[in-house]
Amino acid sequence: MDLKEKIRVIEGFPREGISFKDVTTLLNDKEAFKFTIDTIAEYLKDKNVDVIVGPEARGFLFGAPIAYALGAAFVPVRKKGKLPSETISVSYELEYGTDILEIHKDAIKPGQKVAIVDDLLATGGTIQSVAKLVESVGGEVVSLDFVIELTDLKGREKLQKYDLLSLVQYDI
Amino acid sequence: MDLKEKIRVIEGFPREGISFKDVTTLLNDKEAFKFTIDTIAEYLKDKNVDVIVGPEARGFLFGAPIAYALGAAFVPVRKKGKLPSETISVSYELEYGTDILEIHKDAIKPGQKVAIVDDLLATGGTIQSVAKLVESVGGEVVSLDFVIELTDLKGREKLQKYDLLSLVQYDI
Repeated sequence: MDLKEKIRVIEGFPREGISFKDVTTLLNDKEAFKFTIDTIAEYLKDKNVDVIVGPEARGFLFGAPIAYALGAAFVPVRKKGKLPSETISVSYELEYGTDILEIHKDAIKPGQKVAIVDDLLATGGTIQSVAKLVESVGGEVVSLDFVIELTDLKGREKLQKYDLLSLVQYDI
Repeated sequence: MDLKEKIRVIEGFPREGISFKDVTTLLNDKEAFKFTIDTIAEYLKDKNVDVIVGPEARGFLFGAPIAYALGAAFVPVRKKGKLPSETISVSYELEYGTDILEIHKDAIKPGQKVAIVDDLLATGGTIQSVAKLVESVGGEVVSLDFVIELTDLKGREKLQKYDLLSLVQYDI
């Protein structure tokens, strides 16, 4: 299946100059959605993944069904203040200012194998921060898995030490 | 399976007097997570659901895997400004002030059967707003499905015209 046909590209969102990749049209196509989840779950099935970690909010849309398909657990990474129990946090740079992501301290047991799932790989800043959180609570990151990769932003270079899968690539 | 054992209760989050029901411990138990998704999917399987709708962000955690399990599509309802294409919106009252939820205008075709999934039913205000959005784009709401129901807040009374399922009930 050509997933690119299922992704809507919206020019100028969230601001001028950005060619936004809208995955809601993929989620809204039941065959494309199933194919996306099954393809990533199939790729992960021999990696003995204990936990899928996904960042808020689009990481939940793909990470939670992949966890279900694999029979794995799901652990959310959220923006500051959203997780109710004891957390550790990491701050990461945005174009303007910084943002903070958190994970529950007790969410991953030392040695557990973790795959991190998100909708899109851009510069890789968010995912690098998520991987740091996972490693700081003792998890082993065995794969990073994305529906979309924006290849010109070279996120893959920043994440060279990890196994990395993307299903669809765009050069802009 | 007694799902209540898998849900962590945190007193005083997000503020004093609130007994917060933390579903991250349920998501982090692979058997409990699978049981939760399978139970709701089994309940829905004869309702000919075309689309699962879930509100940001915890609705994504359960709604997306239920859509996958059923072979249905998933449509997100998000906070104002997050959806990239043309939307319709609804505002709803919070304890202090109002909030705005949006759905893509083209997300649901007239006559499609929709189940709305969220983690928790409290006063029912959010879900009533989500149902309004679904109906205003022509969808037929065939079920409202929750992991948790806070029975004392009487959300169920506000939603009497809908089929409603909750897996776990708390009276506080």
